[in-house]
Amino acid sequence: MIKVSVMYPNSPEARFDDAYYREQHMPMVKKLMGDYCKYYTVDRAISAGPSASNTPYIAMGHLFCDSVDAFQAGFGPHSKEIMADIPNYTNQTPVIQISEVVVG
Amino acid sequence: MIKVSVMYPNSPEARFDDAYYREQHMPMVKKLMGDYCKYYTVDRAISAGPSASNTPYIAMGHLFCDSVDAFQAGFGPHSKEIMADIPNYTNQTPVIQISEVVVG
Repeated sequence: MIKVSVMYPNSPEARFDDAYYREQHMPMVKKLMGDYCKYYTVDRAISAGPSASNTPYIAMGHLFCDSVDAFQAGFGPHSKEIMADIPNYTNQTPVIQISEVVVG
Repeated sequence: MIKVSVMYPNSPEARFDDAYYREQHMPMVKKLMGDYCKYYTVDRAISAGPSASNTPYIAMGHLFCDSVDAFQAGFGPHSKEIMADIPNYTNQTPVIQISEVVVG
């Protein structure tokens, strides 16, 4: 299993619309990718507490796929449409990490 | 559910002992934290492929807990022992992110 982490950097100017991301963007990505995306998860930085100022990412989404090839087959044909939706929920440019899930 | 992500930055000089991390360090953390840690996952950067040079983290571990309080109750008393083990598998200083799992 591989995991594509899409991480939105935090900053004092960072804007992120949780509801849109959770209810519109990620379901759209899953629908477009179909079975190439097994499932996804969403994390939101915890803004309360002493760690707030050290939170490197305001939010993260993770797409789980069988392989990098599967991800590319599912995401590639729709990348333009998916990327075009980003400004609808954030002003941040995401950092991408592709990992193998070693323990999951 | 909250998720404490421990992310080890990548660099040409980054060293990371996967086997030690997976077989020694993370099981030790889980054992010390007991039920305060519900479960954990481990990701390893995929080094093959065109994205290799852009992989921000060489590896990541994620601890899942019921709350930030639960994490602190489980981790706090053992933080010294856990931190002291880090040089046994890496020369990197981890970046920490505490998130709420919004979809998971």
